[in-house]
Amino acid sequence: MSPPPRVVRLYESTLPSGNAYKVSLLLAHLGLTADVVALDIMASPSETRRPEFLAKNPNGRIPIVELSDGSYLAESNAILCYLAEGTSFVPADSLQRARALSWMFFEQYSHEPYIAVLKFWTYWGGLSNKTDAELAVLNTRGTAALAVMSTHLASSPWFTGPSYGIADIALFAYSQSAAAVGFAVPGPVTAWLDRVRTQPGWIPIKEG
Amino acid sequence: MSPPPRVVRLYESTLPSGNAYKVSLLLAHLGLTADVVALDIMASPSETRRPEFLAKNPNGRIPIVELSDGSYLAESNAILCYLAEGTSFVPADSLQRARALSWMFFEQYSHEPYIAVLKFWTYWGGLSNKTDAELAVLNTRGTAALAVMSTHLASSPWFTGPSYGIADIALFAYSQSAAAVGFAVPGPVTAWLDRVRTQPGWIPIKEG
Repeated sequence: MSPPPRVVRLYESTLPSGNAYKVSLLLAHLGLTADVVALDIMASPSETRRPEFLAKNPNGRIPIVELSDGSYLAESNAILCYLAEGTSFVPADSLQRARALSWMFFEQYSHEPYIAVLKFWTYWGGLSNKTDAELAVLNTRGTAALAVMSTHLASSPWFTGPSYGIADIALFAYSQSAAAVGFAVPGPVTAWLDRVRTQPGWIPIKEG
Repeated sequence: MSPPPRVVRLYESTLPSGNAYKVSLLLAHLGLTADVVALDIMASPSETRRPEFLAKNPNGRIPIVELSDGSYLAESNAILCYLAEGTSFVPADSLQRARALSWMFFEQYSHEPYIAVLKFWTYWGGLSNKTDAELAVLNTRGTAALAVMSTHLASSPWFTGPSYGIADIALFAYSQSAAAVGFAVPGPVTAWLDRVRTQPGWIPIKEG
């Protein structure tokens, strides 16, 4: 059986993207490198919504990775799962692995749409054009997501089973920006963010 | 090594939930049964936001499953992954498995928040109170999600690698309601919905 295709290229955005950073961070932890292509999502139309990119990802979103077989894989958290296969960054135990996935689905459904979106509006998206009602939804739901994380951290230091791994990387990507965009970050979450930053090979997100 | 804990109980809602149906459908395909507890999400407060349920899932959402070791697992798509381990409903190949996960993250980020939410508003959530702008967002993004699915179906009959499986179940849950709530469902998606309904052990979603 031939080995699975390698990740050879990462398509991300010229603006710092937490979702793309997840992939860069796990690559760094694993000591792997990939070419990087940065697309301008503020162009009109976005470089991710043009035919040459839609042929790679019909959903028109970054990050995607190009593999050594010439195919592409989309969705940051699915890319993490692929890269982590057989490494210490994903639990070998099936229930622990399912719990890590549970946190990764939580991240995309209950966390990213509020904290990442408020970050985007704050830095690049015209926060002043948003209504109080729109901002209240993001604040309430982002705060709730951070509270759920804090509850978990009362009994476990990590989100990926017994050790640091893919669910931590997924949640770190935008949690690290929560305080800067105005969320009151619970102490256990701040302590966990600090633990993540001490992991071997950790790299910061690129500057915008 | 002891076998992984079994799913013994499914917490879902008294209203038909596509996310809970995913779990019921895979259990049926696998010939497994679980006790069912239906919670009233229209109560005030929702039965999923009361202390006894929050102790099981701090995120306050159904479905969750109770396992034979007394623990709980949340997030419909993570539950699918857990139940499908070692079965034909998840690909053995790591890249095919990652692609199935990619579709499941797509479902939760780019599909469910639009098609499922419009379904909820239509049947239970006071559609008439929503603004034209709110409805336009759901219609535009739900239509885009169906188009992405249709593009994939031009080259592959399924979303879970070479055969029917967890990504198809995840996407079927709310795609089956898209036409009823006003989306123009592309022909390839309609044909795929019909293929899903012919799979051995398939069951319909319960009536509301």
